[in-house]
Formats: sequence, C-alpha cells, structure tokens
Amino acid sequence: MIRLLLIGIGTGNPDHLTRAAVKAMNEADLILLPRKGDAKSDLIDLRRAICAQVLTGPTRIVEFDMPVRAVEPAYLDAVAAWHNAIADRWMEQAALHLPGGGTLALLVWGDPSLYDSSLRIAARLGGQISIRVIPGITSIQALTAAHGICLNRLAEPVLITTGRRLRDDGWLAGVDDIVVMLDGHCAFRTLPPEGIHIWWGAYLGMDCEELAEGPLSETGPSIIERRAALRERHGWIMDVYLLRRAGFN
Amino acid sequence: MIRLLLIGIGTGNPDHLTRAAVKAMNEADLILLPRKGDAKSDLIDLRRAICAQVLTGPTRIVEFDMPVRAVEPAYLDAVAAWHNAIADRWMEQAALHLPGGGTLALLVWGDPSLYDSSLRIAARLGGQISIRVIPGITSIQALTAAHGICLNRLAEPVLITTGRRLRDDGWLAGVDDIVVMLDGHCAFRTLPPEGIHIWWGAYLGMDCEELAEGPLSETGPSIIERRAALRERHGWIMDVYLLRRAGFN
Repeated sequence: MIRLLLIGIGTGNPDHLTRAAVKAMNEADLILLPRKGDAKSDLIDLRRAICAQVLTGPTRIVEFDMPVRAVEPAYLDAVAAWHNAIADRWMEQAALHLPGGGTLALLVWGDPSLYDSSLRIAARLGGQISIRVIPGITSIQALTAAHGICLNRLAEPVLITTGRRLRDDGWLAGVDDIVVMLDGHCAFRTLPPEGIHIWWGAYLGMDCEELAEGPLSETGPSIIERRAALRERHGWIMDVYLLRRAGFN
Repeated sequence: MIRLLLIGIGTGNPDHLTRAAVKAMNEADLILLPRKGDAKSDLIDLRRAICAQVLTGPTRIVEFDMPVRAVEPAYLDAVAAWHNAIADRWMEQAALHLPGGGTLALLVWGDPSLYDSSLRIAARLGGQISIRVIPGITSIQALTAAHGICLNRLAEPVLITTGRRLRDDGWLAGVDDIVVMLDGHCAFRTLPPEGIHIWWGAYLGMDCEELAEGPLSETGPSIIERRAALRERHGWIMDVYLLRRAGFN
C-alpha cells in the first residue's frame, strides 16, 4: 500500500514552507522530483535546494522524467492522456523504490488545491493509494504580500480565473476584482483598460522576483514587454496578476 | 519609526506557520495579542500557544483589549470608526512599549490579504509606520486539504465571496464553483439546492475540526443544525464552505 503526500511548497522560497510541510517531507520514505526539460531546470533545482535545507532523516530523493503533453486539438483529451501517463510514472517509481509499500511524497508548487493536477492524477490510482494534502502558500498570496495589498475589497467578492477564461468570457458581471493565473498570453490586453488597475508579479518569492503596479492602460503594455524579456532571459516565466475596477479601496 | 509585520498564522494549527512566519515572529521586538472578550478566548489561547512554541529570543508579548464595533445601521461607517479605534490602540501600545521605535508584529488569522482588516487599519497610520506582510495558510486551503479536493475544476474559475453577498447576489452567472466565507447565517439556504454539492469545514486545522460533505439538499440542513450545536458548545464558530454546481470533475 502506498501512502501519497501531496505537499504544497509555496512558490520557490524555502521560507514559504510550513512546519507541516517540513514534517511531511521528513515522514516520507521517498520524494519524487519531476524533470520537465531544460527550460524549467530552475524549478527542479529549487526543489533540490528545498530538500537539502529541510530533510534531516533517511528520506530518499528520486528524480524522474515527466511525460510530455501531446499537442492535440482536443485540449481536455490531451490533458486526460497526459494525466494517465503521469500516474503510470508515479506507480512505476513506487514499485521500483518502495516494493513493500511506504510513504511517497510529491512537492507541489503553490498549493495542491489550486490549478494543480496532482489530486486529479492521484484520483486515477483509486484504491491503490491513500492521499493526504498539506497546503502551501499560493502565488496569489505571494503577490498580495509583495504588494502589501488585500485580495478583496471590504466584504466584496473576488474571482480567480485563468488567462484563457478571461479572454473567452471577458470581465464577469457582479465582480470588480479578478485574479488571473496560467496566463501565457497577457489576456489583460483583450480588456478595455479604462478604470482598471493591475498588480502583477513574476517569479514571486524568488530572488529574481519582479513586480509592477499601476493603471492597466499604462502598466499593461510595459508588462507585456518586460514579460517577454524575462522569459527570454530565464527560459521560463510564472506570473500572476490582480485586476481591480475603479472605485477600489 | 515603527516597522509593522502582519504575519499570517494559518487557522489555529501551529503547523500551519511558515518558516517565514516563525522568523518574522522572532525578529519582532513586540507582538501584540488582541483580547476579544470571553467567547473567543480560545483564539487568544491559540495565539499564546503559538508564541510559546516558536519564540526563541527576547520578543515581548503584550495583550490588549480590542475596541468593540458599534452596531450602527450604516455598516461601512461603523467599520470605519472601529478601524480608527483599533489603529489608535496599536499606536498607544507601540508608544508605551517601543518608545524609541522598533518592530511590532501582529498575528493574523489565515492570510492578511483575505477578509482581514489589518492592512486597511495599518493604512490609516500612513507615514508613521512601514509594513511587511507574511502570507499564511487560509481557511479555504485548510478546507480543500482536509477534504482532499481541488478548489477549481480543470481550467475553470472560482468565486470567493461572503455569506452576505451570496444571499444578496444569488449564484453569479459564469461560475460554477463558489467559496463562501464570513457566513454567520448559512446563506446557502437561500439557494435552490438542486444540483449543488457542498464541502464544509469548521475549526479547520484545530483538534476540534469538523467536516461535512454531500448534496446541498441533504447536507445543508444537517450543517445548519450541527453548526448551531457547535457554536453553543464552543461559544464561537469559524467555518467556510465550497459550493460546486452539477457536472463537477
């Protein structure tokens, strides 16, 4: 029997780890670190550094190559096939390194509940495993902390969405504050910028953290340029932003 | 000059603290703990226990009585007056215990960015202070972790709102997943329950954590009863829930 720990590690700063995350990492018999290709090698380096800082016992660390997602016209089908392939990879590694069963941990960027697929992948394994989730600081929290702002206005709602959905749905009626994640194409440029303020952050929590803030009409275009330059420099980028419509307090 | 640290401490489990939160607590010259009256004495006890567990240096802990919010017909005016009174109280304590300036810390339930007023109160102090925010695990994250679920569906948006807004606005068009916070009156009962699933949690992260999950039509009424009994038993309750409309994956 495999006990799976999905451990949220925050956004790359080892100080984002909770005491529960540190304990869970040390409880694990095996931590699997995914290799995602050269461009994102910073991300596996960060996970290695986190392990080196907090592990005090005999926990083994094993790296494995992540399957590559097919580029198919049917997005959801491609994702489903990819998730199956990842689940297979986890179980191969477990069979290899924990033949008698044990505790297997995965270090999840941010929090396992928010725009992360580990729980969906784990659900494919059904009765073969038990699952425990340890929450972690999300990039949304790192963004608001870095800017020293509230996510919500006093007693008001907030929408969390993706770049794709912002582009397809536009600005949802009934909400004045929108957080956008997973946006590789600066979907904010599809909005009429008047009266909108943006707070943006990339590489949040890391030494190379970048922040920008201002009226979308002025700040939006500069973010588009800066983002392209940063992606070029680092080979990858992860960013998030909050949009707030006029009248904010 | 006063340097103010707003430290998110999670939802009552000392293991929710991040390494950054522990460091920040130990950097502080003074930690202020608010007393909110007898009914919520568990909450100050938890903060005292957290301090006892993690402080290793000369940080002083001082308790102070929170002002009471007036019950006025104008909700926003009452909140503004209350925030002014709290800001005054902080500065009184700082003048008393840090007459030459220094680092003052407040331990914020959850994360300082989410439905918490500390940042708004601190903003009233303008140039008298500098502010740093340390994010903490929110009750939303404790809820999804305890249930082992994702907050969002694959690439779908999520709305975070309050009980008051759910009751006033109903179910917002364009979103199928809603998290409800600050709901003292079970606003879910104002919705037609067909096709809605609820994941509920109270006292999340604490020894007395309570969870419930199921179709709203069956689970909703049992939560209303259970919540009343728990509030009676503990003298207070803090809870949060996720509502998901049919077709969830």
